[in-house]
Amino acid sequence: MGLKAVVLLSGGIDSATTLAIAKNEGYNTYAISFNYGQRHSFELEKAAKIAGLFKSEKHLVVNIDLRKFGGSALTDSIPVPKDRNEKDISHGIPSTYVPARNTIFLSLSLGWAEIIEAEDIFIGVNAIDYSGYPDCRPEYIEAFQQMASIATKAGVERKSKIKIHTPLINMSKAEIIKKGVSLGMDFSLTHSCYDPISSGKPCGRCDSCLLRLKGFLDAGLKDPLEYS
Amino acid sequence: MGLKAVVLLSGGIDSATTLAIAKNEGYNTYAISFNYGQRHSFELEKAAKIAGLFKSEKHLVVNIDLRKFGGSALTDSIPVPKDRNEKDISHGIPSTYVPARNTIFLSLSLGWAEIIEAEDIFIGVNAIDYSGYPDCRPEYIEAFQQMASIATKAGVERKSKIKIHTPLINMSKAEIIKKGVSLGMDFSLTHSCYDPISSGKPCGRCDSCLLRLKGFLDAGLKDPLEYS
Repeated sequence: MGLKAVVLLSGGIDSATTLAIAKNEGYNTYAISFNYGQRHSFELEKAAKIAGLFKSEKHLVVNIDLRKFGGSALTDSIPVPKDRNEKDISHGIPSTYVPARNTIFLSLSLGWAEIIEAEDIFIGVNAIDYSGYPDCRPEYIEAFQQMASIATKAGVERKSKIKIHTPLINMSKAEIIKKGVSLGMDFSLTHSCYDPISSGKPCGRCDSCLLRLKGFLDAGLKDPLEYS
Repeated sequence: MGLKAVVLLSGGIDSATTLAIAKNEGYNTYAISFNYGQRHSFELEKAAKIAGLFKSEKHLVVNIDLRKFGGSALTDSIPVPKDRNEKDISHGIPSTYVPARNTIFLSLSLGWAEIIEAEDIFIGVNAIDYSGYPDCRPEYIEAFQQMASIATKAGVERKSKIKIHTPLINMSKAEIIKKGVSLGMDFSLTHSCYDPISSGKPCGRCDSCLLRLKGFLDAGLKDPLEYS
């Protein structure tokens, strides 16, 4: 019997590889996904398949209507930027940023971790190809972890410390893809596109598709997805 | 034109007084309530009335289904403890504790604050009559604030700092009630009971009712609510 870990699973390459890593480290994984009013639910369908592939103990989908807040291209009617070059993608915070998203997702994961008595939470944030999101930086993760250990009943009663694992934090997209493949990940089960067509086919032009395609190219592998 | 502040408003005495304080300090208030699968929605109806009384700019009710996690008497089928004495109420963490609740609520408030460009968040936590919840302690609030300022786009781009205001942190329930009354709060608009009867009448026996009744007694005031 391994230890329990909560793994944030969006259905993209990073979270899928993170789940594979947690599993490979011997954890019994509890996958959690969020239906937060994103433009489409393809990634949630993929997340369920990925959790199945790696035999997660449970896969929970939590509904939170972040659309009520507005303010992001991922949850609002602001257009998703397309065809940006690498320099633009890696500088500044784009309109696809969802305010406080990782904080909200990690907080909910913390609530679940507390209930199932897990002290380990895995999140696939990345400080290299990170699209400029402030809540993907190591100092942010460190501060969340600090807060989390004070926030919980387990922390007070059993001096239990919450550990936020970020195994991808210093990996390039190509390294993440190669790591995933080495651990048995089938990337045809992932979804990355911010703005897919109705059938779910990725656009190939948003920041997320462009980072993914470059990752496969750099890894010397072929992306198993078909683009529109 | 005052500054904007997000105020967590549950519909109870503490959050109502907190809203009155924020308003009195000159903030334009943005009240946020959570429909988190609690046993009843009386407190949400009250919250809307309180936001109206203090002329909040907006009142947002965010749905998050914490019932999916289970594990608390407030969201699960675990019975609410009744008729406990003062010593029991003030020691240990009771079954009404909802794991990571304040962390989840503060994170969502942070997301909204970021969108409306507020740097101030008010929460009515209390370290005196605090029912033993770990996420009501000053060191917890401090750690959350630290994390919040690193988490956001505003923090990165404008070095904006998030301030979590806890005006009630060192006040007794009686002091909170007196403060609220002095600022024009009408406590008949509040709801505190964990386990009301179907009409919404409070039980008078759960920890929350007992703390409330004692507060009014100590303040030398009459609770305007009718008990069942």
